[in-house]
Amino acid sequence: MTAEQVTGAAAVLRTLAAGGVRHVFTNPGTTEIAFVAAASAVPEIGPVLVVDEIVASGAADATSRLTGVPGATLLHLGPGLTNAAANLHNATKAHSPVVNVVGDHASDHRASPSPLQSDIEAIAAPLSAWVGVVGSADEAAATMARAMHEASSRCGVSTLIVPSDHAEQPTAMSSAMPDPVVRPRATDLAVDAAARALREPGTALLIGAGALRADALRLADRLAVAHDLDLWTPTFVTRAERTVPLARPLQKLPYFPLQVHEVLGRYRTIVAIGTDEPYAMFAYPGEPRRLTPDTVEVIALVGPDGDAHDALARLVDASGAPDVASNAATRPTAPDDLSLDPRTLTLAVAALLPDHAILVDESQTSGGGLWDALAGVPHDVLGLTGGAIGAGPPLATGAAFAARDRRVLNVQGDGSALYSAGAWWTQARHGLDVTTVIASNRKYFILDVELGRAGRRDLSGGPLTTLDHPAVDFVSLARGYGVPGVRVESAAELSSALARSFATEGPMLIDACW
Amino acid sequence: MTAEQVTGAAAVLRTLAAGGVRHVFTNPGTTEIAFVAAASAVPEIGPVLVVDEIVASGAADATSRLTGVPGATLLHLGPGLTNAAANLHNATKAHSPVVNVVGDHASDHRASPSPLQSDIEAIAAPLSAWVGVVGSADEAAATMARAMHEASSRCGVSTLIVPSDHAEQPTAMSSAMPDPVVRPRATDLAVDAAARALREPGTALLIGAGALRADALRLADRLAVAHDLDLWTPTFVTRAERTVPLARPLQKLPYFPLQVHEVLGRYRTIVAIGTDEPYAMFAYPGEPRRLTPDTVEVIALVGPDGDAHDALARLVDASGAPDVASNAATRPTAPDDLSLDPRTLTLAVAALLPDHAILVDESQTSGGGLWDALAGVPHDVLGLTGGAIGAGPPLATGAAFAARDRRVLNVQGDGSALYSAGAWWTQARHGLDVTTVIASNRKYFILDVELGRAGRRDLSGGPLTTLDHPAVDFVSLARGYGVPGVRVESAAELSSALARSFATEGPMLIDACW
Repeated sequence: MTAEQVTGAAAVLRTLAAGGVRHVFTNPGTTEIAFVAAASAVPEIGPVLVVDEIVASGAADATSRLTGVPGATLLHLGPGLTNAAANLHNATKAHSPVVNVVGDHASDHRASPSPLQSDIEAIAAPLSAWVGVVGSADEAAATMARAMHEASSRCGVSTLIVPSDHAEQPTAMSSAMPDPVVRPRATDLAVDAAARALREPGTALLIGAGALRADALRLADRLAVAHDLDLWTPTFVTRAERTVPLARPLQKLPYFPLQVHEVLGRYRTIVAIGTDEPYAMFAYPGEPRRLTPDTVEVIALVGPDGDAHDALARLVDASGAPDVASNAATRPTAPDDLSLDPRTLTLAVAALLPDHAILVDESQTSGGGLWDALAGVPHDVLGLTGGAIGAGPPLATGAAFAARDRRVLNVQGDGSALYSAGAWWTQARHGLDVTTVIASNRKYFILDVELGRAGRRDLSGGPLTTLDHPAVDFVSLARGYGVPGVRVESAAELSSALARSFATEGPMLIDACW
Repeated sequence: MTAEQVTGAAAVLRTLAAGGVRHVFTNPGTTEIAFVAAASAVPEIGPVLVVDEIVASGAADATSRLTGVPGATLLHLGPGLTNAAANLHNATKAHSPVVNVVGDHASDHRASPSPLQSDIEAIAAPLSAWVGVVGSADEAAATMARAMHEASSRCGVSTLIVPSDHAEQPTAMSSAMPDPVVRPRATDLAVDAAARALREPGTALLIGAGALRADALRLADRLAVAHDLDLWTPTFVTRAERTVPLARPLQKLPYFPLQVHEVLGRYRTIVAIGTDEPYAMFAYPGEPRRLTPDTVEVIALVGPDGDAHDALARLVDASGAPDVASNAATRPTAPDDLSLDPRTLTLAVAALLPDHAILVDESQTSGGGLWDALAGVPHDVLGLTGGAIGAGPPLATGAAFAARDRRVLNVQGDGSALYSAGAWWTQARHGLDVTTVIASNRKYFILDVELGRAGRRDLSGGPLTTLDHPAVDFVSLARGYGVPGVRVESAAELSSALARSFATEGPMLIDACW
């Protein structure tokens, strides 16, 4: 290797760095040895060790949601990729750019019937918006740059497979820069139609993705005040930058299909910006799949990959909606003398969450009130987007890396937490300021709800819906991973523990049991 | 629903029961509600709740390896399937029949852009030897029977996708029986050639799969004694039924490619029964991929899906090899006054493992001596077959369900354990007699070895290869899941803890730290 040369692996890492990536989440194996060796020579990138790739993909997704730069993972052949798949699914549904670098066998061994051989391209295809294979060390940088561009422009997952020989070999092509991304803009026709609709009664705004960034939200708020509009977000929110006080409430669509159908049926026209139309989470017999009633006209300006701020700004221009002043809402008082349940958990969070914290919400059935309760608290919220449970602890981990100066609060269902509790080890290893509140009802409560809806309430609390016998001791689990924890059984204990964690550097887990 | 009718879900479960399945491992969701409802009405099958599908697939694989009946999982859409994928990969490489039942959205909602929508058929294809979709409740039983037959006959993974409406609807086709499986037999030509080769010097037997069952092993041993043959197994063993004493040592091929190449190069002819030719685990520069030197002739009688016992019996007939008497080997003494390390861990296990226990070996770099040390101890061993780490705790869980009267010992690497530690919750919930010994070296030691081989020993012990800072407290982790645990730091403490666990019902974890 000459002075100008680097390994293919180093070229991949340098290209990630050139594109703005600062963290690569990984549990490397033998096929990634060249990356392990190269990492120490690419100081812009901090490789972060995780104990399971489900943590890698969720953490990468969070850095993407918070920074706008694709999140990055380094994965070990087919099994590393499939271990990451649940949170790649969530990233896909979040329209969150993530790039996977998958180490594979040497190019002349990829098809050998070895124990770790699998068809990685076929595995990656349904998990990715774009898949590529590095063909030589000289191609490594350019193909990595292409993968980053595809992830950004498609708002999705790119998977780049790197055979180990190409990762090991030298190349003078030591870095490349991803092409810039141009976001689709709304057509003039659609903006004109939407502007007319806003002046008519019975119109609502449904906004997601880029329309939920602070600057865009201010514009949506101006439109809402000027035209007396309701503002809605989809049920599942990638990131809402709720850091500015709004004059109108930003409401979140409910969970069950009939509820969403009823809400949308109140309007004659829905102007959708930064979001696709909502479809049912699950299809129930006799209930709708498409949740917009046929009586409602939908004017779609841009989808989740489009320039939502531009669409909102042009609507504001067209309507002449003036700027609005809004007062910060007041916070509730911490519920010190009440019993612990989802309602008081919500009140405690609303009372105590530090300004500009990041809330990672995988609270499932326990956190239905969090969105409304936190309207007056300046914060970011990252949500579960694809229904693949176990997103919360990894998202919280990645969020803390992306914003080391902000507290992260992960309100987390107990059943879901068990998919990715290993994230706590990485939180401990890096002293991340993450507070985890486990909403411990010791059941997969949604299943009991669904059994009731299916007329089988007699089976609720049965062997397939309960997490007791034994009850998981989350304080012990957290301690096992090096995170201090406390169990609380009253609202006062919860408030006290939250206040203590928010005032203390590093991670902490609060097992909130009711 | 008439008296003769059942739901599609019940028809699936009844068909599994008819085919001999006794346990379905699952973490169900809303699309599997009909299965949750049906389970209580199919008493032959015990649905077993797991906290992560990686446990489901590994446990199903173990029941398959031990009973010969396909293991069964019930999975929640695409994410449930990909969560299970690592141990489906291992089952594939183990040639172990496993059937996945994947609940999907209702048939008219499968293509809707809902949060949990994904292309499950495309996800399943590279993870499965056979994929099918149930087209109606009336088809459910027959398609399930087909899936079971395909898994059995292909010695692999079948994935059956069941849309939720077909699972919910009534049908009179309430059960079906899988077609019987006919295993491929060795040709007369191959048996004759092998029989001739056995009489020549420089021939060895390489045996796997069905050739490692007790009855077949006795036949291989007769051949080895009669012809003075070496007996070898592949490096990665699905199940070896080492319950009968052998007159000749059954040796296991080593791990690194050059080592295997050297061993096989000692022979002129390899007679392979129940196994394919070995290929390199990883391809190193300048080292072989195919591990049989070109100077060696391979006579392959049957592969892993073939009738190995028949092939061995015909060889015995052809050679007239007489039955052999062999004395049970003596056990070592427990190493009470030695320090704890991989060698003394191995001695303690060899001294104390109860007769007819099941050893689940995912000991990685810490257990290289276990195979030889346990030659005189009647036991079964299940190994890691596909290199997707995290197999051990799930395999141990499934083994305990398949053989409730036998002790299971899982010797488990620490890094690998963190992929599937949730298995311990299911062990606690069902009081399974599983002893887990964590070989806690607090590193991904194989990576340090590989860095050394790659000339980068300076990077060993670096941030991507170590599991300390913080050291995982496995006793706390186990307690979190309801399993009692103890940390040991000397060989005497380990022996004492092993003896205590082997004498006590239920699971226990021993964190063996050196």
